[in-house]
Amino acid sequence: MWKVSPTRLEDICTSIMRAAGAPGSDARLVADHLVDNDVIGHHSHGVIRLWDYIEWAHQGDLIPGALPRIVSETPSTARIDGNWNFGQVVATFATGLAIEKARTAGVSAVTIRRVKHIGRLGRYAEQVAGEGLVSMIFTNGGGHGINQAPFRGTERRLCSNPLAMSVPSRLAGPFLLDFATSVVAEGKVRVYRARGTPTPAGWILDSDGNPSTDPGDLAAGGALLPFGRAEGHKGYALAFMVELLAGVMSGGGISGDPGRSFSNDSMIIVIDPELFVPMAELEARSLVLTEHLKNTRLADESQPVLYPGEKEAEARLANRERDIELPEPVRQQFLTMLQRFSLPDPDAASSG
Amino acid sequence: MWKVSPTRLEDICTSIMRAAGAPGSDARLVADHLVDNDVIGHHSHGVIRLWDYIEWAHQGDLIPGALPRIVSETPSTARIDGNWNFGQVVATFATGLAIEKARTAGVSAVTIRRVKHIGRLGRYAEQVAGEGLVSMIFTNGGGHGINQAPFRGTERRLCSNPLAMSVPSRLAGPFLLDFATSVVAEGKVRVYRARGTPTPAGWILDSDGNPSTDPGDLAAGGALLPFGRAEGHKGYALAFMVELLAGVMSGGGISGDPGRSFSNDSMIIVIDPELFVPMAELEARSLVLTEHLKNTRLADESQPVLYPGEKEAEARLANRERDIELPEPVRQQFLTMLQRFSLPDPDAASSG
Repeated sequence: MWKVSPTRLEDICTSIMRAAGAPGSDARLVADHLVDNDVIGHHSHGVIRLWDYIEWAHQGDLIPGALPRIVSETPSTARIDGNWNFGQVVATFATGLAIEKARTAGVSAVTIRRVKHIGRLGRYAEQVAGEGLVSMIFTNGGGHGINQAPFRGTERRLCSNPLAMSVPSRLAGPFLLDFATSVVAEGKVRVYRARGTPTPAGWILDSDGNPSTDPGDLAAGGALLPFGRAEGHKGYALAFMVELLAGVMSGGGISGDPGRSFSNDSMIIVIDPELFVPMAELEARSLVLTEHLKNTRLADESQPVLYPGEKEAEARLANRERDIELPEPVRQQFLTMLQRFSLPDPDAASSG
Repeated sequence: MWKVSPTRLEDICTSIMRAAGAPGSDARLVADHLVDNDVIGHHSHGVIRLWDYIEWAHQGDLIPGALPRIVSETPSTARIDGNWNFGQVVATFATGLAIEKARTAGVSAVTIRRVKHIGRLGRYAEQVAGEGLVSMIFTNGGGHGINQAPFRGTERRLCSNPLAMSVPSRLAGPFLLDFATSVVAEGKVRVYRARGTPTPAGWILDSDGNPSTDPGDLAAGGALLPFGRAEGHKGYALAFMVELLAGVMSGGGISGDPGRSFSNDSMIIVIDPELFVPMAELEARSLVLTEHLKNTRLADESQPVLYPGEKEAEARLANRERDIELPEPVRQQFLTMLQRFSLPDPDAASSG
């Protein structure tokens, strides 16, 4: 295990991205995003992603420092070409623009395309909620990262096509929904594979289309099922809509007509709730709702009813001062990246 | 069985609502909505609902002819008070206003409250798609119609809180998602109960919170589970967000703080897709996507992959000239309503 403080891990990530050509502020933004995901326990979207980003940059598939371009805009909408910069940089810029437009226009929609991995969608939903606004975010893989079967199908045809929604609250965090439209995100299957334990029934099909509990079958050409199990037509319908909103409407890549490479094409919608209800009323009544739901009799006393986003908000509060623990192979990847750019070894640096 | 043509059934429904005090155009609109649901096979949202509407009107809980009022508006938003008119009248008006605002503002959001049963959400999503626009619709029960347990809870606390989304297409119908965030809509359980067959495992809990397959247990104080089964936290998160968008933001009723009576409080969002992509490109590329997904190897050759909304669009094409078949008890209800308003017996009329 590699135990490292969030601050130190952010510094290491920042130095690697700067060495790979990213401006300091971009590198810091991406590092902050990745480390925050580790802090809240979403390690699949944490610093382990940096290896791919640096590889993409090396291959010219990610262009550090490229400026996102507003291709067209109206007071309420914008189409953004990410120019293949870090996804987090492009998505943060796009979210900021959607916030700005919603403040004046009341409701806004912004799309991005030609943009690498944007990471955890909830981050942008939190960015919007932090401004007292409401968000909906839809993201595909630009016709790449294909791992999900359509309902009734037995072959991979869609990305995990996540969506996020947020509403501001006066709780520890905003009301925040953020999930893959596949039964689980691919990263969860990787965790089972690394552990060497079978995945639950109902998650994956093998490459022949048969139900499987072998996590290795996904990477070997299998597919994730849409979420919903017997009601998988609902998860599939959401995945399909994400493909239309995030892929077709952004002018990005789609399943059946992919773009140049993996791209988290997205649509970001922002609404100013105060055009509908004063913030004090929104906060007070949503608290009444939350309390009423939490007071429900439980199936298992140790498993309370949560509001959407509670887990992440509580984890951030609990863990932000604690060291992050990462597996040894991740540390080895970091050492390799540091060596590649002739940067100091983190342990040497920390003891110096 | 009562066999009746769609046109004739619409006339009967219209005459009953007119007799109950609805202006002719409102009565026709509601009748058209209900009959269309029977045509496409969604009988739970069909003419069997008229009995309740007439009862509500009799009790003063539904006010035929009451004009929806725009409480406040901006170029992109509006808050509508339905004044307890037929839900279909209020929701059609609100959808029309959202369409108009999206045409000029690019993106719009409209809420409704104090509005009775609006019926099938997909109808309003189709209304938007018919204008070449994109929609998202979120609807709760105003703190009534409570039948869904929160994830990890074993008591009913939420309505089935449906959502709908649509994107125009050049297929038989628009791309259309329309589903309850509970595992199924309550109407489906009623169908099992009427048939006397057990409901599938994983749908309902009895009033003690134990899993049940007895459809009678739902009406006896049980609860529907959120959709998603083992991933029910996703269905629950959607149901929660619907409560915030449709209930809190409309100023309507919510679970824990209900309004005067059942009200399909809603938020309707409309986006002009041509600010993002030309319609020809949207149609062509979404067709490529559809074909690519349909070409997936199937689990069962008799069960093809569908685009969302295909079932409804194909059913409408196949059935619109055919007689609708309704169970005898529904006919009895209609005879009672006709007698109440001294209207002619439909069979006498049809033979006359």
